Amino acid sequence: MKLYDNRQAPNPRRVRIFLAEKGLAIETVQVDLVAREQKSEAFRRKNPLGSIPVLELDDGICIAESVAICRYLEELHPEPALFGRSALGRARVEMWNRRVELGLLGPVGQVWVHGSPLTARLLTQIPAAAELNRGVVARFLAWLDRELADREFLAGEAFSVADITALCTLDFATGLVKITVDPALANLARWHAGVSARPSSRA
Amino acid sequence: MKLYDNRQAPNPRRVRIFLAEKGLAIETVQVDLVAREQKSEAFRRKNPLGSIPVLELDDGICIAESVAICRYLEELHPEPALFGRSALGRARVEMWNRRVELGLLGPVGQVWVHGSPLTARLLTQIPAAAELNRGVVARFLAWLDRELADREFLAGEAFSVADITALCTLDFATGLVKITVDPALANLARWHAGVSARPSSRA
Repeated sequence: MKLYDNRQAPNPRRVRIFLAEKGLAIETVQVDLVAREQKSEAFRRKNPLGSIPVLELDDGICIAESVAICRYLEELHPEPALFGRSALGRARVEMWNRRVELGLLGPVGQVWVHGSPLTARLLTQIPAAAELNRGVVARFLAWLDRELADREFLAGEAFSVADITALCTLDFATGLVKITVDPALANLARWHAGVSARPSSRA
Repeated sequence: MKLYDNRQAPNPRRVRIFLAEKGLAIETVQVDLVAREQKSEAFRRKNPLGSIPVLELDDGICIAESVAICRYLEELHPEPALFGRSALGRARVEMWNRRVELGLLGPVGQVWVHGSPLTARLLTQIPAAAELNRGVVARFLAWLDRELADREFLAGEAFSVADITALCTLDFATGLVKITVDPALANLARWHAGVSARPSSRA
């Protein structure tokens, strides 16, 4: 199998970190997002929606969507479990992963497409939408900081895919999207330092 | 266990249909969204993000996020499988469920919050954001129509949670959000008639 990847984008990094946590190494193919290669006819045969990451299996079947890829890898390589243990544990990981996706990744993405000079050529930007979502991001991070007061990881005592989503989102936000995180959010900073210290974060 | 629910909102309906497909009946508690009951201090003790649905277990533990709830129910009651069968089948359901969430439910939600007179009191609406997302919705539905040309259900030959997400989103879009679907999308119309004919759709 091989992974269609890009070193700058947050979603393929989620899969790379997931692979690293599992101790797996697979072939990666870099997709040139600046040249819009993901929107080409050739790539749309792998994923008609023209987005990455995509996992291509040896028989040519393609799986798109970061979490669908990660779930597939979890089924093939169950340990260490990154989607939780027990029915309730797995529900909690799913809940937290979705909270981060809906409450943080989505809004950060809106700031990116509507507020960055790097995406201005892709659509008619709506500056008010960027501004609105900056506020959403700030409020979500403040809430996340309070939630992290009493535990090491987002979904409890074990590192999970929810931490991967949050790490990739936060690094994308403070990197390419140039969002500043309030340094007073000490629990968030402690969590970020912890997950960034894992070798997988360099994937 | 009981479900914190609302009859007009699309996300709790996803869980109700899921329960109906499983043949399960559980207690539901109606949450008054017009009165913003979901944002009350009492409700935030169940879900700090102040959203529904929430599944409350008999010991008081609460699971938020529709898909986290559905996954928990799938673990307790595996049949009929609504998240797919086999590693690849489950990856495909996850991929399709996410495609519908990201490509349709998200944009329909943006039209709702930025374009409906019913939500005008909740935020400073950005009419351009509503308009932009109307276009996103129209293009996604046209693509979905082409995808549905050669199969009965979104993720393949079996009804899945991806169909539930799409049904609830489309009915919400054409209902409260007042989005008109191009009647030329014949495959989409055939799919919609099929899933709407299932008894669970009345849940």
